[in-house]
Amino acid sequence: MLYFANDYAEGAHEKILQKLSDTNRESMPGYGNDRYCASAGEKIREACQCADADVYFLAGGTQTNQVVIDAMLQKHEGVVAAHTGHISVHEAGAIEYTGHKVLELPHREGKLAGAQIERYLETFYGDVNHEHMVFPGMVYITHPTEYGTLYTKRELQDISAVCSKYRVPLYLDGARLLYGLAGEGTDVTLPDIARYCDVFYIGGTKAGALCGEAVVFTKKNRPPHFMTLVKQHGALLAKGRLMGIQFDTLFTDGLYMEIGSHAVRMAGMLRRAFIQRGYDFYLETPSNQIFIVLENERMRKLQEKVVFDFWEKYDAEHTVVRFATSWATQEEAVEQLIALL
Amino acid sequence: MLYFANDYAEGAHEKILQKLSDTNRESMPGYGNDRYCASAGEKIREACQCADADVYFLAGGTQTNQVVIDAMLQKHEGVVAAHTGHISVHEAGAIEYTGHKVLELPHREGKLAGAQIERYLETFYGDVNHEHMVFPGMVYITHPTEYGTLYTKRELQDISAVCSKYRVPLYLDGARLLYGLAGEGTDVTLPDIARYCDVFYIGGTKAGALCGEAVVFTKKNRPPHFMTLVKQHGALLAKGRLMGIQFDTLFTDGLYMEIGSHAVRMAGMLRRAFIQRGYDFYLETPSNQIFIVLENERMRKLQEKVVFDFWEKYDAEHTVVRFATSWATQEEAVEQLIALL
Amino acid sequence: MLYFANDYAEGAHEKILQKLSDTNRESMPGYGNDRYCASAGEKIREACQCADADVYFLAGGTQTNQVVIDAMLQKHEGVVAAHTGHISVHEAGAIEYTGHKVLELPHREGKLAGAQIERYLETFYGDVNHEHMVFPGMVYITHPTEYGTLYTKRELQDISAVCSKYRVPLYLDGARLLYGLAGEGTDVTLPDIARYCDVFYIGGTKAGALCGEAVVFTKKNRPPHFMTLVKQHGALLAKGRLMGIQFDTLFTDGLYMEIGSHAVRMAGMLRRAFIQRGYDFYLETPSNQIFIVLENERMRKLQEKVVFDFWEKYDAEHTVVRFATSWATQEEAVEQLIALL
Amino acid sequence: MLYFANDYAEGAHEKILQKLSDTNRESMPGYGNDRYCASAGEKIREACQCADADVYFLAGGTQTNQVVIDAMLQKHEGVVAAHTGHISVHEAGAIEYTGHKVLELPHREGKLAGAQIERYLETFYGDVNHEHMVFPGMVYITHPTEYGTLYTKRELQDISAVCSKYRVPLYLDGARLLYGLAGEGTDVTLPDIARYCDVFYIGGTKAGALCGEAVVFTKKNRPPHFMTLVKQHGALLAKGRLMGIQFDTLFTDGLYMEIGSHAVRMAGMLRRAFIQRGYDFYLETPSNQIFIVLENERMRKLQEKVVFDFWEKYDAEHTVVRFATSWATQEEAVEQLIALL
Repeated sequence: MLYFANDYAEGAHEKILQKLSDTNRESMPGYGNDRYCASAGEKIREACQCADADVYFLAGGTQTNQVVIDAMLQKHEGVVAAHTGHISVHEAGAIEYTGHKVLELPHREGKLAGAQIERYLETFYGDVNHEHMVFPGMVYITHPTEYGTLYTKRELQDISAVCSKYRVPLYLDGARLLYGLAGEGTDVTLPDIARYCDVFYIGGTKAGALCGEAVVFTKKNRPPHFMTLVKQHGALLAKGRLMGIQFDTLFTDGLYMEIGSHAVRMAGMLRRAFIQRGYDFYLETPSNQIFIVLENERMRKLQEKVVFDFWEKYDAEHTVVRFATSWATQEEAVEQLIALL
Repeated sequence: MLYFANDYAEGAHEKILQKLSDTNRESMPGYGNDRYCASAGEKIREACQCADADVYFLAGGTQTNQVVIDAMLQKHEGVVAAHTGHISVHEAGAIEYTGHKVLELPHREGKLAGAQIERYLETFYGDVNHEHMVFPGMVYITHPTEYGTLYTKRELQDISAVCSKYRVPLYLDGARLLYGLAGEGTDVTLPDIARYCDVFYIGGTKAGALCGEAVVFTKKNRPPHFMTLVKQHGALLAKGRLMGIQFDTLFTDGLYMEIGSHAVRMAGMLRRAFIQRGYDFYLETPSNQIFIVLENERMRKLQEKVVFDFWEKYDAEHTVVRFATSWATQEEAVEQLIALL
Repeated sequence: MLYFANDYAEGAHEKILQKLSDTNRESMPGYGNDRYCASAGEKIREACQCADADVYFLAGGTQTNQVVIDAMLQKHEGVVAAHTGHISVHEAGAIEYTGHKVLELPHREGKLAGAQIERYLETFYGDVNHEHMVFPGMVYITHPTEYGTLYTKRELQDISAVCSKYRVPLYLDGARLLYGLAGEGTDVTLPDIARYCDVFYIGGTKAGALCGEAVVFTKKNRPPHFMTLVKQHGALLAKGRLMGIQFDTLFTDGLYMEIGSHAVRMAGMLRRAFIQRGYDFYLETPSNQIFIVLENERMRKLQEKVVFDFWEKYDAEHTVVRFATSWATQEEAVEQLIALL
Repeated sequence: MLYFANDYAEGAHEKILQKLSDTNRESMPGYGNDRYCASAGEKIREACQCADADVYFLAGGTQTNQVVIDAMLQKHEGVVAAHTGHISVHEAGAIEYTGHKVLELPHREGKLAGAQIERYLETFYGDVNHEHMVFPGMVYITHPTEYGTLYTKRELQDISAVCSKYRVPLYLDGARLLYGLAGEGTDVTLPDIARYCDVFYIGGTKAGALCGEAVVFTKKNRPPHFMTLVKQHGALLAKGRLMGIQFDTLFTDGLYMEIGSHAVRMAGMLRRAFIQRGYDFYLETPSNQIFIVLENERMRKLQEKVVFDFWEKYDAEHTVVRFATSWATQEEAVEQLIALL
C-alpha cells in the first residue's frame, strides 16, 4: 500500500532517532531543565531572529493550543478563530473545557482577514456596553490553515496590525508551519512569523518528530507561572529531554526547513500530475496537502492501493479526499501513485 | 558525578530505542489505532491475567491522573486521597482544575487503610443529609507510595473490599509500579493489582520509557466516550505508536519486571551500605527509593560528587534526602557511591 | 418619563408582595424544603398537565441555563443553539465556563428548525468517526426567542421529534414564556411545552417576580444529585421560600397567564399604533416586545420622553430599538406613548 | 413549635418588606445600576469608614465565595482556609468547581492564626522550587467562624500583617458578620474589618434580608471586568434593585447593627440559662449560635417542642446540637425555651 493519508504516519526522522540514541545515557534534570531544551531554545531564537523569545516544549498540538490559550486569556475572555479553525471543530472542545469560548468568525479558504477581525473587535470598544458578552482576548490563526492554504506576508501584517491596535495578542498555530514556510510562492519567513505574532508554535509531530511542539513567546509576554500552568494542565513531561533533543536536532543544520521543502516538492510532483490528468481540485494549496474531488467509484478503486484521507462528502457521487506528503514520503512512492491516477 | 536523584534522568531502555528504530518506517494510523498499541494492550491483559481489561496509553503521570479521575467521577463527586498523595500536593492542582475536589485523609507512611476509608465513606450513607458536601466518588492510592512504601496484599484487599461495598471505584497510581512489584518482601503481584483495583496505571516514564503510562480498566468500566475525553484534555497524541511500541517492548520477554528487579537490587545494595555505616533512615522502604536523614554539612559534602534529591528539611541541622535507582543504574555506580559514604 | 425599555424594570406584582408579607413570620426549613416550594411545584405540575414533573427553583435566567445545561450534559457533550441564542451571545460565556461548548447553528428570526437540527445531529451517527468533535448532547431553544418571535405547535413538534429520535434532550428557555403563551395567534399551550420539551423553565423575573425561575423536568429525567450540583454552582438560596412563595402566587388563580395577557394586550395597542403611523418594523412579533427601525434623529427626540432599548445599529442613519411591555405597563402610559409617535 | 434551628428561617425584617413595597412601582435600570444599589453602596462605605470601597451585591453566600475567590485568584493559585471553613466543607466543592484548590490548614475553634499562615506562606518563597504545587493566592477566614467563635482585633491584625507581607489578599466571609460585630466582649468593629481585609462580604441572608450579600473591595482592588465575571458565573440578577433596596434599608438608621445586637442579646439569655442548668457547652461562643452537647434521649425529648440543628455526633450517647437566634427571635420564645430546659 502507498501511504498518503497524513504527515504523521511514520516514526521520526532518522537524525532524530540517532540523536536520541547518542544522548540516551546522559543523566539530566527533568521537566525541561536539561541542556538540550536550552540548546533547542537558543537555536529556535536564532532561526526566528528573535533574541528575546521564550521557548517552551509541549507534547501535542491540541495540548499546546489548550495550554497557551488558557494561560494567555483573562478569565472573562474568549479567543477569536475561524469557524473552520482546528480549535473550533476538531479538538473535542478542549478550549471550552478550560472555560473559554471560541468566538467563531466566517472564514475564506480557512483564513481570517484583518478587516474582518477589526470589525469584530471594534464593537467591543464603542458606546454600547458589552458586559454581558465574552470579550475577545486573543486571535487564533493557523498557517497553513486546515485547508492547506497560506497567508501572505501582507495578510499577516494586516491581522497583526489590527491585533496590536486593540492590544489583543495574535496566536499562530503552526502544527504544519514548515510546510507553509516551504510553500510554493510564499513570501512568509519564520522571522516574519515571529515578528507578526505574539505567540506561536512550531509543530514537531507533523514535522518528523515522535511528538512535541515548540511554543514561542515573542514579545517578552510569557504568562507568569507558565510552568505551573503547564503542570496544572497535566502537560509537563518528566523527561523534557525527549522534546529538547528532537527540536535541537530539527534546528541543527537546517533540518526543519529541509523536511518542509522535501514534502512540498513531493506534493508539487503529485499536484502537477493531478492537473495533467484533469482532476478537480477542491481548492488550491501550495503546501503539503492536496484536496481532490473524486468520483466515489474512482475513490474506492484507488483505495485498494493507496491510503489517503476522507475529508468530506461533496455530493451524492463525489467525495473530497486529502493526499498529504511528509519527511517520510519517498519519490518512488509518488511516482507509483502518479502511475495509478 | 554519580546520579541517584530520580528514576527518570536518562533516556530509554536500549531495547525500547531499538524497537523504535526497527519500526520507524512503518506507516500506521494515528491516535492509538496502530498494531503496537493493540499488541501492547494484549500483552498487558495477559500480564494482568485480566482478559477483559481495556488498556489505553497516555503520555505522563499527572496527565493520566487528571484524565482518569475526571473521566470516572460524576460532576458532584471528589476523589479521596492521602494528604500526602501525589494528586494532593505535587500536581499543581491538576485535579481541582477539572472541577473536582481532592478529599484528603491522614496517611500512615503515605498509605491509607481500609478501616479509615470506611469510616469516611459511611458518613455519606447515614441519616444526615450531606447534599452540601462533596461526595466521595473514587479512592486514589499510590503503590509504591510517595514515600516508597508498599501496601501488603491484605491491605489492598481491605481497601478494595470497602470500595466495593460502597461502590466507589479504587484507582491505583502506578507511576513506579514495577518497583513495588519487585519490592523486597512484597506479596503483591500484577494480577493482584488488577483484581483489587477498578482502574490503575502502569507507569512507563519511570520504568525506562521515554514517556507513557498504560491505563488499565479492569472491570469493563471504561468511561463512555473515553477517547473524546482524552482529546478534550489535550492528552491524545497523534503518534500513539510512540507509546504502543514502548509498552509492547516493556511487556515482551518480561522486560518490565526485569527492570524493576534490577533497580530494587541496586537499591538493596545501597540500603545495606547505609545500614552498615549507621545512617538514619527517614522511613523503611523496600522499593527503589531510599530516604536518609543527613547532617547538612555531610549532605553538602556528598553533593560535590553525587546528585541526589532534596526531600524536606528535617530540623535546623538535618535534611531528608532521597536516593533512587532505575533501569539505568549501574552496579559500579552504586559501588562508587557506597565508597563515598 | 415613560418606561418601555424592558419587562424587569419594576419590583413585583402586588399580589406577590402581599403574599411575602403574609407569610413573613412563618418559620420554615431552608434550601427549598418549605411548604410554599412544595405547593408551587404542585400547582405548576397541574398547569403543565404533567403529573410526573420535577420542579426546582433558581434565582435567575443565566444561572438556570448554566445549571440545567451543565447538569444534563455528559462531560464530552455540548449544547446546540441558535447563533443568536441567549446562551450563545449574552451570557458572558456562562456555558463555556462550565466546560461545555455551545454548538451554534444559523437561525431564522431567532428560531431553529427540526430539519436543520436533524441534518446536524445525523452526521454524528454516520460512518465517519467524530471522536475529535464535541458531541451534541442537548438542543436549546427560547420561546419567545430573543427576537420576540414564537414557535408554532407544529415547529415545536418537529424539533421534539428529532430530539427524541436521536435521544438528545430538548431544553426550552422560558424566561418570557408567559408572553409566548399569551402571544397573538399562538397555538402553543403550557401543556404543549411540557409535552414537547424534556426540560424547560418558566421565567419569574420577567413575569412580575422579584427574582426566580422554575425549572421543570418533564420526563422523570432530573439529573441525579441535582441539589448538590445546584449548590456546587453557588445557586442554592438559603431562603428558598422566596421563590416558593412567589411562584405559588403566580400559579394561583391564573395570575401568571393574566400577567402575560395584559402585557401582550398592551403591546398589541402599541403595535397597531406603530402600523397606523407607518413605522418600519424590524421583524413581526406577536409577544410583548416590538422592534422598530427608527431614524436616529427621531430616536433621539423620542428618548427625551420615553425610555426604550437600543437593540442594534441598522445603518448609518437608522437604529433598531425595542419597546417592551410587562405586568407593570399601564394603559395610560401606552396611550401617552402613542400620542408621541 | 419553637424555632431555633438557624437564622434564616423567616422572611425579612419588616422594614425591608416595607421598603420593597414603597419602591415597587419605580422603574429602574437593571443589573445593579439602580439608585438603591448606589445609595446602599454609599451607606456601606460610610459604615466601613472606607471611602474608596467598591461595593457589589450578590444573592447568596456560597455564590459570593465562589465569585469573589475565583475573580481574585490567578489561574495557578488556590485559597488558604481552615479545614473547617465553609468553603472547605459545606459548599459542595463550589471553589474547586472553578478550578481552584482550597488549601486546608488545621484550625483552632474554627480559626486560623497569623503565625500559622506565615509558616505556610513562607515555604513558597524559600530556596525550594514549588512549581509543582498550588500557590496560595488568598487567605479566607470567617467571622464569626463556623463554630460561632470570634477573632480578636489583635488576631485579625496579625493575619492581616502576614497577608500584606506576602501580598496575599485577605478575604473575610461575613455571612453572619453582624453577630460578630455585636458579639459579647468583641473589640472588632466594621471599620476594623474594612481596614484589615482586602475584601469581605456583609451577609444579608442571615441578617434579616430575603437574600443578598454585599461584597466590599477595600483597597481599590476590584478585579477588572468584575461584572462580566459575575455574569459568567450566572450570578447577576436582572432586578439588582432587590439587593439594593434591602441593603439600603439595613444600613439606614443602624438597622443592621440593631438586628445583630438583638440576636446576640437573645442568645445571651439562652446561654446563661444553659449555664445555670449545667448543660455542657461544645465550645464557648459570644455570638448568635450556641453549641450544646446533649444526651440523645434528652435531645429527642426536646425535639418534640423545639426545632434546633443537629451539628455532629459527639459519642454513642451524645450529640452536639446548635441553637441560633436572629432578628426574628422573640423574647417570649426564648423564655419558653428556657422553661423547657
